[in-house]
Amino acid sequence: MGSVVRPRVVIIGGGFGGVAAARALRDAPVDITLVDRTNHHLFQPLLYQVATAGLSPGDIAVPIRWLLRRQRNVEVLLAEALAIDPVARSVLLDVEPNTLRYDYLVLAAGARHAYFGRDDWAPLAPGLKTLADAAELRKRFLLSFERAERTADPVERAALQTIVVVGAGPTGVELAGIIPEITHTALRREFRHIDTAKTRVVLVEAGSRVLPAFDPALSDAAARSLRALGVELRLGAPVTAITPYSVTVGGELIPATTVFWAAGNAGAPVARSLSVPLDRAGRVIVEPDLSVAGHPELFVVGDLAHVEIGGALVPGVAPGANQGGAHAGRMIAQRVRGAPTSPFVYHHKGDLATIGRHKAVAALGPIKLSGLIAWWAWLFIHLLYLVGFRNRVSVLLQWGYAYLTFQRGVRLLSAPTLPMEDAVPQVNAA
Amino acid sequence: MGSVVRPRVVIIGGGFGGVAAARALRDAPVDITLVDRTNHHLFQPLLYQVATAGLSPGDIAVPIRWLLRRQRNVEVLLAEALAIDPVARSVLLDVEPNTLRYDYLVLAAGARHAYFGRDDWAPLAPGLKTLADAAELRKRFLLSFERAERTADPVERAALQTIVVVGAGPTGVELAGIIPEITHTALRREFRHIDTAKTRVVLVEAGSRVLPAFDPALSDAAARSLRALGVELRLGAPVTAITPYSVTVGGELIPATTVFWAAGNAGAPVARSLSVPLDRAGRVIVEPDLSVAGHPELFVVGDLAHVEIGGALVPGVAPGANQGGAHAGRMIAQRVRGAPTSPFVYHHKGDLATIGRHKAVAALGPIKLSGLIAWWAWLFIHLLYLVGFRNRVSVLLQWGYAYLTFQRGVRLLSAPTLPMEDAVPQVNAA
Repeated sequence: MGSVVRPRVVIIGGGFGGVAAARALRDAPVDITLVDRTNHHLFQPLLYQVATAGLSPGDIAVPIRWLLRRQRNVEVLLAEALAIDPVARSVLLDVEPNTLRYDYLVLAAGARHAYFGRDDWAPLAPGLKTLADAAELRKRFLLSFERAERTADPVERAALQTIVVVGAGPTGVELAGIIPEITHTALRREFRHIDTAKTRVVLVEAGSRVLPAFDPALSDAAARSLRALGVELRLGAPVTAITPYSVTVGGELIPATTVFWAAGNAGAPVARSLSVPLDRAGRVIVEPDLSVAGHPELFVVGDLAHVEIGGALVPGVAPGANQGGAHAGRMIAQRVRGAPTSPFVYHHKGDLATIGRHKAVAALGPIKLSGLIAWWAWLFIHLLYLVGFRNRVSVLLQWGYAYLTFQRGVRLLSAPTLPMEDAVPQVNAA
Repeated sequence: MGSVVRPRVVIIGGGFGGVAAARALRDAPVDITLVDRTNHHLFQPLLYQVATAGLSPGDIAVPIRWLLRRQRNVEVLLAEALAIDPVARSVLLDVEPNTLRYDYLVLAAGARHAYFGRDDWAPLAPGLKTLADAAELRKRFLLSFERAERTADPVERAALQTIVVVGAGPTGVELAGIIPEITHTALRREFRHIDTAKTRVVLVEAGSRVLPAFDPALSDAAARSLRALGVELRLGAPVTAITPYSVTVGGELIPATTVFWAAGNAGAPVARSLSVPLDRAGRVIVEPDLSVAGHPELFVVGDLAHVEIGGALVPGVAPGANQGGAHAGRMIAQRVRGAPTSPFVYHHKGDLATIGRHKAVAALGPIKLSGLIAWWAWLFIHLLYLVGFRNRVSVLLQWGYAYLTFQRGVRLLSAPTLPMEDAVPQVNAA
């Protein structure tokens, strides 16, 4: 029996979109290569918990190989896609073999942070998209208290005990909301020279309300919960300057040495190599079936896709990537058997953001919730979608422990993260 | 009421010795500063599990601040001790305030790896003492399979699937023994082009038997268990060369790209600044009460101390550091209240090493165990000594999961660990 040459599907990215595409092609007569520059699939909605030392990286990430181990038509390649040649139908990789040819491509490479023309802010205000980002945020968060404990200068100490979060979307709100819970409880008994409960948390949003994409009633509820936790809100004013020791918002200079960026997304740079129309955020503008105009074999899904349905953009959230990836996989399967493609239909599952230890806001269909009941909905949905039994049990255990004891166990700094002393700002308040 | 100036005790190192010293001074009228260059106390006996992706760093490490949070006479300083001036009684730190004066010093800075004059081997054959070391070993271990999966060259593939462990003390035996369990089970279904069960594991020991410090009967049992797992033993021959693509043992060249070093210890470099007699391994030769000759206020404990009792050296194991640290703390308390010091008495608790998933060898007093029952003893003792309730439950859960499913969940590589391609060896076997 001779072997039949089956179409080669290349998927770039092992996040929600890429994995959903691979799974949708489980029974299709194709050979799939999934390329990712890390070896793991990451549950990004809980990344803020790793950044604040509540969860271990292993709790919210699983090896992509493990996830797809039973799907025999998939191989996984640890590599970075540097460029795509849509005419030759090939992907340029950073490892041997450097060229990967495809018959169908699913581009699900996601987004990075956008600094709106101020890329010089990136090292001062890191964002949160990967495990490496989370490790960086955790390091800065923990080191700020270590330095505050050492300094004798009250002005420097105040700046070291001020954390500014830029951007009040779900990530910014969740980061800002969890910090007071930690500084008021877990850390408080451990220092001798500072009171960690005096840590200032400032949440900055250029728009007029927190959670701008949510229903205004939920924005109001979230703002109330944040204020009750002691988070200072700065709404309706953009950040105009960031230095190693301050953030300027509107006309106000806030002395602060720790700044987290949650304000904007930019499509992965690999999209630029396609020579197809991108939107202002660097996302690929796709056809109704998620393919690229003129390239019916090339699909873009997830945060890298600009998908307009009925005049509205599909939001860059996990369900959007899941549904888009699955659709692209189904379209490829249809094309392989000679059937036409159909337009993508997006089902909005709702909006969810947690605030601190036991509050949240949620819009699930027509139902709007806030407070403790929304937090339980948030917990239930996140555990439901978290991949892998081990992770679910471990996350529940860690949360149960953290909830009952106010402790956050994963507060580890390795020596190679030091010496950081060249990064210690000298604060000289004007 | 005026404040009384209390003696200042500085402890360098937050491992078993340093923490035990701090705890022994709990009720003493002293002010303690514990200095460590990381922020965590590490349970080193389980570090090989982190290196092989069985446990998360957070499972075997806790913040030193948390550990000592209730002991109000201790403050913790995240800093590296660069040098000690025993005449001026001060420690030079890498952060402000750069000088820390003391009345009593406990030096518990531990050991690093010794390459016996071949420091050029360090980058080729990393050792295992810190969480950062474990991350490095895990990265090399996992990347070797990713590269083997990619290569089309069978000779290169064989070298990428060969792991050499140098040194057959407990760490070397535990590392070598766990690898076949992983390659035969957890990884096997996930690759498409290689059979991970064909991974060669070679354990090299210059001495004539594995576990040279253990009873010969246990060495024999361990060797049998290792051979049953498929580990190749090379005994009685030293390593004479290491390159990026091979290890030479005696006259034999073993093509191998992954080499782990577990062969020797060298005292932490800070000891050299003391200008007191060191042994060949760089350890401080101490008096019977663990103080340094001529400096009754300066104690050295743990892996950095050369302690001879009745002609025998106290071994560099966790119970030795624990007991030594506690003794030093008690001696300082006695001196503060004007009492003389007494000699250190070491109680040898026994020898323990695990081999693979469910075998171990143990000498507990007169009782010698091997096989499954020794493994249960090993598990019980390690959980008993592991600090923190959260860690114990989490470790048991992870082990239960790994044991039942053969999975190892914590196999994560972040993108910043890549590109590693410049480190990929070109293997051209002669």
